[in-house]
Amino acid sequence: MNLDIWTWTIPIGGLIALLFAAFLYFRVSKQNPGDTKIRELSKAIREGAMAFLNSEYKVLSIFVSIVAILLFIASFIEGSNIEIGLPVAFIIGAIFSALAGNIGMRMATMANGRTAEGTKNSLAKGLSIAFSSGAVMGMCVVGLGVLGVFSLFFMFTQFLAFDVVTATNMLFGFGFGASSIALFARVGGGIYTKAADVGADLVGKVEAGIPEDDPRNPAVIADQVGDNVGDVAGMGADLFESYVDSLIATMALAAVSMAAILSSGASESLGQLVLTAANIDAALWLPLVLASFGILSSIAGVLLVVVGAGANVYSALRNSLYLSAVLTAILSGVATWFMLGDLNPFYAILAGLAAGLIIGYSTEYYTSEKRKPAQSIADASKTGPATVIIQGLQVGMMSTIIPVIAVVAAMLAAYYFANFYGVAISAVGMLSILGVSLATDCYGPVADNAQGISEMAGMGKEVRENTEQLDAVGNTTAAMGKGFAIGSAAITALALIFTFIITAGAMGYSLSLDLADPNVVVGVFIGAMLPFVFTALTMGAVGRAAYQMVEEVRRQFKELNLLKSDKNKPDYKGCVAISTKQALKEMVLPSVLAVISPIIVGIILKPEGLGGLLVGSIATGFLLAVFLANSGGAWDNAKKYVESGNLGGKGSEAHKATVIGDTVGDPFKDTSGPSLNILIKLMSIVSLVFLPLIIAISG
Amino acid sequence: MNLDIWTWTIPIGGLIALLFAAFLYFRVSKQNPGDTKIRELSKAIREGAMAFLNSEYKVLSIFVSIVAILLFIASFIEGSNIEIGLPVAFIIGAIFSALAGNIGMRMATMANGRTAEGTKNSLAKGLSIAFSSGAVMGMCVVGLGVLGVFSLFFMFTQFLAFDVVTATNMLFGFGFGASSIALFARVGGGIYTKAADVGADLVGKVEAGIPEDDPRNPAVIADQVGDNVGDVAGMGADLFESYVDSLIATMALAAVSMAAILSSGASESLGQLVLTAANIDAALWLPLVLASFGILSSIAGVLLVVVGAGANVYSALRNSLYLSAVLTAILSGVATWFMLGDLNPFYAILAGLAAGLIIGYSTEYYTSEKRKPAQSIADASKTGPATVIIQGLQVGMMSTIIPVIAVVAAMLAAYYFANFYGVAISAVGMLSILGVSLATDCYGPVADNAQGISEMAGMGKEVRENTEQLDAVGNTTAAMGKGFAIGSAAITALALIFTFIITAGAMGYSLSLDLADPNVVVGVFIGAMLPFVFTALTMGAVGRAAYQMVEEVRRQFKELNLLKSDKNKPDYKGCVAISTKQALKEMVLPSVLAVISPIIVGIILKPEGLGGLLVGSIATGFLLAVFLANSGGAWDNAKKYVESGNLGGKGSEAHKATVIGDTVGDPFKDTSGPSLNILIKLMSIVSLVFLPLIIAISG
Repeated sequence: MNLDIWTWTIPIGGLIALLFAAFLYFRVSKQNPGDTKIRELSKAIREGAMAFLNSEYKVLSIFVSIVAILLFIASFIEGSNIEIGLPVAFIIGAIFSALAGNIGMRMATMANGRTAEGTKNSLAKGLSIAFSSGAVMGMCVVGLGVLGVFSLFFMFTQFLAFDVVTATNMLFGFGFGASSIALFARVGGGIYTKAADVGADLVGKVEAGIPEDDPRNPAVIADQVGDNVGDVAGMGADLFESYVDSLIATMALAAVSMAAILSSGASESLGQLVLTAANIDAALWLPLVLASFGILSSIAGVLLVVVGAGANVYSALRNSLYLSAVLTAILSGVATWFMLGDLNPFYAILAGLAAGLIIGYSTEYYTSEKRKPAQSIADASKTGPATVIIQGLQVGMMSTIIPVIAVVAAMLAAYYFANFYGVAISAVGMLSILGVSLATDCYGPVADNAQGISEMAGMGKEVRENTEQLDAVGNTTAAMGKGFAIGSAAITALALIFTFIITAGAMGYSLSLDLADPNVVVGVFIGAMLPFVFTALTMGAVGRAAYQMVEEVRRQFKELNLLKSDKNKPDYKGCVAISTKQALKEMVLPSVLAVISPIIVGIILKPEGLGGLLVGSIATGFLLAVFLANSGGAWDNAKKYVESGNLGGKGSEAHKATVIGDTVGDPFKDTSGPSLNILIKLMSIVSLVFLPLIIAISG
Repeated sequence: MNLDIWTWTIPIGGLIALLFAAFLYFRVSKQNPGDTKIRELSKAIREGAMAFLNSEYKVLSIFVSIVAILLFIASFIEGSNIEIGLPVAFIIGAIFSALAGNIGMRMATMANGRTAEGTKNSLAKGLSIAFSSGAVMGMCVVGLGVLGVFSLFFMFTQFLAFDVVTATNMLFGFGFGASSIALFARVGGGIYTKAADVGADLVGKVEAGIPEDDPRNPAVIADQVGDNVGDVAGMGADLFESYVDSLIATMALAAVSMAAILSSGASESLGQLVLTAANIDAALWLPLVLASFGILSSIAGVLLVVVGAGANVYSALRNSLYLSAVLTAILSGVATWFMLGDLNPFYAILAGLAAGLIIGYSTEYYTSEKRKPAQSIADASKTGPATVIIQGLQVGMMSTIIPVIAVVAAMLAAYYFANFYGVAISAVGMLSILGVSLATDCYGPVADNAQGISEMAGMGKEVRENTEQLDAVGNTTAAMGKGFAIGSAAITALALIFTFIITAGAMGYSLSLDLADPNVVVGVFIGAMLPFVFTALTMGAVGRAAYQMVEEVRRQFKELNLLKSDKNKPDYKGCVAISTKQALKEMVLPSVLAVISPIIVGIILKPEGLGGLLVGSIATGFLLAVFLANSGGAWDNAKKYVESGNLGGKGSEAHKATVIGDTVGDPFKDTSGPSLNILIKLMSIVSLVFLPLIIAISG
């Protein structure tokens, strides 16, 4: 394996990302943190968020330890084919993911008060602070992702002299570690945030009739904390997983080709792409090089907002995404051409980038309050809440068409250009601008928090208007970010399935996933069922946790007489504790289901049934995720459409009906939907990790 | 091909079914039709129902004519491989299905008033009338199904001397004809019934506060008509399709084996079953013989209720199902043993029967108001309608587990015993007691109508209590019947897929549905998407049609001053016309989607992509159908649970919340869910019919 100048761009890119993150962190921390009240609120949110994260890490460290010990033991069993590097990579993957989440959350909870304070100066100032804090998360994710994958692979191949196939197989452990953290962060965070949100709304807004973010509501801090643990830590871990999985899948496919080429001396055709002994090294490093160039492009996009933002928040964010996408496309083309002497993988990358953008825009269309779908839901409120629900479900189901077509078209194109390798690298292409797109996502909850703090701290009308504007754009970008996260999860999971098939072949097991084999069909059926069950479990968890929260808020309102007198202060920590406890308790069952199912099905129905399971779960999981996210987003914005004065405005019957829709949509879009992203990727990576064992037992 | 004594049991069984239907029809028609008021109401319902059916048949005859002409033309094109018998069978299949639906509906709309009148005598008398009328539908479906398949096949092979493979390929036309009617009947009927129901409820019950079935509500007759067109004609056509499809699939698989055995002289092993020149004829006729014996068993079950019913309605119905199931099992074992000398297909049949019963009971558990799931939904009303919706969705999604496990376990078992032939004949086993199980289904809407008529005609408390009791049991059996319809659709569709694979092979096209082929994966994704889109379309159709109905009812209330004075009578026909017009208009788009999608996908993505599409659509369609049916049923019964005095009873906040759940559930369980049964079967049969053309164009 040759290391050339291109190879060294990889660690450099990763380091630049981390340095840039440190620079932004430092820059935000220097901003005015506001008066005592703001600082107190910000502190309460940070403490709640960190308390949850620490409790979550305790559960996680138990899980990670058990799995790591099992993997270590397995690596010593003759014939298990699990190398000792795998559990090491697993632990490092888990630590890196947790680290990125931790830094991102510290930043976000430090930036919320400063953003509110910043908007006193100007909208642009507030935007710059909120976006910078989001970019810290984005840069940590891509930096740690690239450095983690690169340094492990470098160590395995250069110092420990493993062959490339074994080395990439051990990298699956890194993906598995990242997936494990993502699972708990998404599921736990999703339950946390919606238990707090639904609990706060049902008692505060609906029963007591006080406004959102009213400081008298005991659940209001838990609600703000929830935005951070769900949308910052959860989203970050989700995309860290997609990012490293897509890199690893591409490298694993290249490694199998490399082994074949080096042993036979012949060239190999992958679609239109011809790999030879001369360019196979380049094919192996290409995904990491692209990731590194994606980091540089993302930094350019971030700087555009941080330094040059004007008054139009939405167009500032959009332009930064465009700039990064265009730069990445150009740099990818250059790198592909000079490294491989063949542009076919580049076309696959373009297909991935295009699919990502199309899914983002489709999400925006189906959920924006300015568009027909959300307005049709608002319109349905004329005949009451039942028709609001039906219309919302219909919009969500209809909205699956464009993302499905985009993903399958990108896949077919990528396959045409470079076979499975093309599919994997198209996922890398889609995710290459993650540094900036994640910044756009994580900016949302910071703006939301800033809005809440300005409300609670009574910062006056002008500040509130500014933070509201930031928050509104944040909702749109959050919806787009969710679409992007789902699309990238789907195409990453597809890349992992193809890696699963190729890896089985490389292990000497000829895996034929023929649908005429009943094991495969049964696998598809069970795989298709799991997302439904997973959704039911996470929805039920939110219901139960919210119920506890409702009881606690009611109790405090009554016992402390919060609504009628100022004498007592609400016990925010009581609500934070309930959300934390419930989320940790409820995340266990769905998480175990996700890890255990593929192993059990693999043993009973052989690798064939497991392959069927993966395809079934990805297809249905992708569809359900899009449906849930878009129904939820559209209900949210239908409510906002009414609140902005249409159909009778706030307090009207139409408003009440759309509030019911929004409450139904909360677990849709913020718990169950996003958790499905993890489910489909995690089951694929678990299958890859345990494939040698499953083949040994049942194959 | 040998015809022996067993063969002749087939037409005899079919004729006995029709004679028994005629006997029951005559017997019901002799019952007291009640006083003028009852007769008038019954007449209005019958006229509305027949008017809809006639309008629907007009649309249908256009559709059938166009398709038949296209098929005729195709049959004359060299190399199309479509024989002229196929369009003939298509037309006959359509006519037979329409005939069964027409007779069943005439009977049901004649029996409703007579049932109400009969309960004056005793509950048992009312039960006997209602159940007899349901049995007329059941017997017509099985009789026409068996006779149609038998006589066409007999004609093709004996008179026209086609070989058995060609003959069964032409039989696909019969299935396609049945599917086409089923599609329009289910989709159109489903839209009709829920437009009327939701419209009547939203304005009558919610806005005006008048009780259900109040004669002042202009939509009340349309609502009664809807029960007939949806639950009688729609359900009948749905199961007619499953029934004939399962018979044809089994025969087609046997025919391919026969051709192989006769040409090579060697025996063929299908799982544990060994087919030889000596027993291959028996394998071909076996499904029809089983169907014939199933008819006899069903008649015994029907007689048990009609003649011997006591006061306990539910146990009478249950016992008749048990009796028929046990008799069928015994007779199947006898027939299989003496015909084939091999009991393996019998074990496959038992697997199918068991799966059908398990799915029925699982449905009962998840939807009954006496069980935890529906009660948990009612409980969620404490925190408002939003949590009722979330809990209902959760229950429905969770309820997918048992049916999926039942179907895949039956499939694996059936495959083990007799390969694909086993899977197909297990569907025959599940459907063999259709004569009595369909009677149990169609009894429901008759009892519902009787209940409505007794209310509208003011027949007094005792009659109302009796009809209420009949109606309550009808709701439970309807839920179980829906579960059964879904399960049988899934396993029938699976049998059709395997037939698709084997048929392609018999046409010389070696079809490998390998999931490593991106065309297959893309097919799975698109197939998985279609049920979501189809559900969105049918839900949207109900929403739009209900909206028109709401407007009309509001208009009549206002202009005719119906609520405050007796001077004007409501214009029932106006509402009937709206439901009819809207249903016919709205059924076209989803129907066309169902027919066109597989053809387009087959041409673009080749037979491989089409195979993937079928598997994807069956897996997701089955899951969505179970989810929608059970969520809908559970919401319905959660409302009834509150209405029977729990959680504050009628008029409480809890009641209002559960009414919203029930309204959301209406299109779930009566439109979108049942329509999915048709979608998955129809796409499979369309694929089979057009397979030769698709191979010629793209293969």
